[in-house]
Amino acid sequence: MQIIPIHIDKEIEPGDDISKLILDSAEIHDGDILVVAQKIISKQEGRIVELSSVIPSLLAEGISSEYQKNPRIVELILNESKQIIRMNNGILIVETKNGFICANAGIDESNVKHGFVTLLPINADLSAEKICNRILKNTGNDVSVVIADTFGRPFRMGQTNCAIGISGMRPILDYAGTLDSFEKTLRITAIAVADEICSAAELVMQKTTNCPVVIIRGYNFKNEKSSIHDLIRPENEDLFR
Amino acid sequence: MQIIPIHIDKEIEPGDDISKLILDSAEIHDGDILVVAQKIISKQEGRIVELSSVIPSLLAEGISSEYQKNPRIVELILNESKQIIRMNNGILIVETKNGFICANAGIDESNVKHGFVTLLPINADLSAEKICNRILKNTGNDVSVVIADTFGRPFRMGQTNCAIGISGMRPILDYAGTLDSFEKTLRITAIAVADEICSAAELVMQKTTNCPVVIIRGYNFKNEKSSIHDLIRPENEDLFR
Repeated sequence: MQIIPIHIDKEIEPGDDISKLILDSAEIHDGDILVVAQKIISKQEGRIVELSSVIPSLLAEGISSEYQKNPRIVELILNESKQIIRMNNGILIVETKNGFICANAGIDESNVKHGFVTLLPINADLSAEKICNRILKNTGNDVSVVIADTFGRPFRMGQTNCAIGISGMRPILDYAGTLDSFEKTLRITAIAVADEICSAAELVMQKTTNCPVVIIRGYNFKNEKSSIHDLIRPENEDLFR
Repeated sequence: MQIIPIHIDKEIEPGDDISKLILDSAEIHDGDILVVAQKIISKQEGRIVELSSVIPSLLAEGISSEYQKNPRIVELILNESKQIIRMNNGILIVETKNGFICANAGIDESNVKHGFVTLLPINADLSAEKICNRILKNTGNDVSVVIADTFGRPFRMGQTNCAIGISGMRPILDYAGTLDSFEKTLRITAIAVADEICSAAELVMQKTTNCPVVIIRGYNFKNEKSSIHDLIRPENEDLFR
């Protein structure tokens, strides 16, 4: 399996043709998986906000004063969230309207121009599907696309890349009923391959190298219709909500 | 970056020379990272228990009766644990004596002979270091080794491969003070690269293919002394304990 960086030097603007930028910078094969950084999808879709245009509510002002956060950013976090999951030590963990549990609703000031922040895409499955369709149309190659963002997690230090949108592959590889090498049924039933693919891609993307897209080549999988929602644990099955 | 599977068909027995088995099956380069499945380390180190030899305590019997679990396995889980973190819906999440938070203390019946289970290695950093030293001695190549196990996580469905032992690289890549492409200081400060490397390896290891070792080649990192404990979030900084 190969993990191939695609360097795109252009700063992405709303309406840019990301598929064209990818095809201009790399040779894509049938069966490739493209991992695309959330940041360029958000920029391309105009999910970027000038902070000076945000008017914080009294709640946002209150939370900010307690946690030394920018009240305009807190206002955006609250707007993007279904509920606050934890609020402590200056950290705000929320459930986004799409069901992701992450810090600050995925709102991010890094790698965006001064005074602006990016929000998560509204429907990253659709963002991924558009890239698949465009590449199929322009090249005849059937690729799968995973949109990746960097999230923290409980119990373990450091952040890892996770999937927030997917097209053309299932996010979970289900081993239910498979036999192990002793012909016993496997206890492990489901691997979150979409998250593992995003993590693999992060190792070459890194954070400062103008590498917002990575090709995963040689991974054996079935191209299938899917949704990122298969990756979200239902609240009533989660022991840590 | 390449991810190269190493197939080892031999069933690992206590005392087997894993480094030799690796070198017999693959060509190793200086700077390679080897990801080794916990399962073969546990078998090699004799961390394998015949269930019929375990005498369950009354507590283990009690928990088992409530959760339809094997009382001998529950007894082993309790032995391996510092504390129970969650016990619900038949799921037992514990903190192991090494500080990992995972289901069933990492005790596993899959890919081991009938009537036996594997326990996690006592000190997987040391297990990793032994392989590094042996390969350096036999080939002159300086490699890094990460021991991987498959853990679930809150909020997201499916399991991913995580690091439980490391030698020759830091588990966290620290970006603190680094500038982004707009010359602003990056907000994201620490990436759990060891976990990402294990996740990348899992994509080719899979669960049933006799591929317990994977080479990660072409990843740019510094060979440094390290400990897996850098990956464990201190209890007082964890919002989900």
